[in-house]
Amino acid sequence: MHVARAFSCHLSLADMSQQMSFKELMKVLGLGAVALVLGVEWINWLMRRLRDSRGPLKEVLFFPSPQVCVEHLFIRHKHFPCACPLPHGVETSFSRLLMHLLSARMSLDLCVFSFSHMELSRAILLLHKRGVVVRVVTDRDYMTITGSQIGALRKTGICVRHEMSSAVHMHHKFALVDGKKLITGSLNWTLTAVQSNKENVMVTEEPELVGPYQQEFQKLWEANDPANHKPGQLNIKTCKDR
Amino acid sequence: MHVARAFSCHLSLADMSQQMSFKELMKVLGLGAVALVLGVEWINWLMRRLRDSRGPLKEVLFFPSPQVCVEHLFIRHKHFPCACPLPHGVETSFSRLLMHLLSARMSLDLCVFSFSHMELSRAILLLHKRGVVVRVVTDRDYMTITGSQIGALRKTGICVRHEMSSAVHMHHKFALVDGKKLITGSLNWTLTAVQSNKENVMVTEEPELVGPYQQEFQKLWEANDPANHKPGQLNIKTCKDR
Repeated sequence: MHVARAFSCHLSLADMSQQMSFKELMKVLGLGAVALVLGVEWINWLMRRLRDSRGPLKEVLFFPSPQVCVEHLFIRHKHFPCACPLPHGVETSFSRLLMHLLSARMSLDLCVFSFSHMELSRAILLLHKRGVVVRVVTDRDYMTITGSQIGALRKTGICVRHEMSSAVHMHHKFALVDGKKLITGSLNWTLTAVQSNKENVMVTEEPELVGPYQQEFQKLWEANDPANHKPGQLNIKTCKDR
Repeated sequence: MHVARAFSCHLSLADMSQQMSFKELMKVLGLGAVALVLGVEWINWLMRRLRDSRGPLKEVLFFPSPQVCVEHLFIRHKHFPCACPLPHGVETSFSRLLMHLLSARMSLDLCVFSFSHMELSRAILLLHKRGVVVRVVTDRDYMTITGSQIGALRKTGICVRHEMSSAVHMHHKFALVDGKKLITGSLNWTLTAVQSNKENVMVTEEPELVGPYQQEFQKLWEANDPANHKPGQLNIKTCKDR
């Protein structure tokens, strides 16, 4: 049945090409191509209109997040499916968080109190490897606790600055992706926070919210410049500060 | 000079009232009142248009917040100015936070990990006294630490529920005012967080953000219902649960 249909279709196309001159055929093909391009553009326009009517991105993620395989987020064009025992093809709050972080193309500004989560560390190192400018501001006490990933980031040349005072905590937990996407909430970057605690993370591209956080990051970045520290203090300059 | 002007103004008004009949005077006064009401309504309309064009409320507060007097937020119609030694008439991140909390008229749903700040406790107790329905979800371990205000809230009959598991932290720090204003961020309700730490709080009435937090609160509220606890567990039912 399918073969017969395909054959008749093939025949009718052949008939058409026989009946049409080369010029006419080119005209039909050209018009078809123009119609296709216009159609795609129209769909694109409709999608943009739809997105604009909903306003900038606003997404809320709640934790704890169940453990699933997130390998596909790190290795984009892997030919063989991951063989790990975790569930595959499942979207969770954590996979959404990772996806938003890994969407950085130019810069990632990270302001986080406690950072010991291995997969989040892997994501930051991958971004750095891809040429994304990563800047980290963290807490003085928590950056040196067992399991902290801050040392691993510094070793690869990622710029890290920390709160100067040991009497004060740098308790923020926010990230800015390419200066236009804000990720903020109660979630520290630890395994307990992701897998056990009741936590929230908000992701938004609302300029009225992104702007103040970007300014706060810049303020903290400049206030904790190692150039203003006395030698012998805890801060170690291991990167080319930008 | 001022006296002379006031006198001439007084004279001309007196002259006018002499020249006009009582009916005419009433007409002028009536028209003036109508014009005043219409003017105020028009300004209100313009303000609403301006606010609507900017979309729902979005405000970001950063901490630490300097210590200032916030007495005027608690006592609305006080005749004598506060005599405390703190700076007066200064708006800070903390006074904005308090103002947003005290704007509750119907309900306050609070989901907070650590709560020991005396002035925030005073605000919650005041709302409860005013008849605002207050519900609190908190962390099991942190609600019993020294200085915690959870006991003080419970004593007055405010409904408090806590995370069931001691292995898991209820780490949220958000509040929902009248089910339409969300206050969320990194800030725990402690004096150190408010006066020392680097913290952030976002206040928004954006329905796409408020909605998920309201659902999360309801989910936690129901999951931690004392009716589902075995007797002898830590949870004590001290209020009429709504």
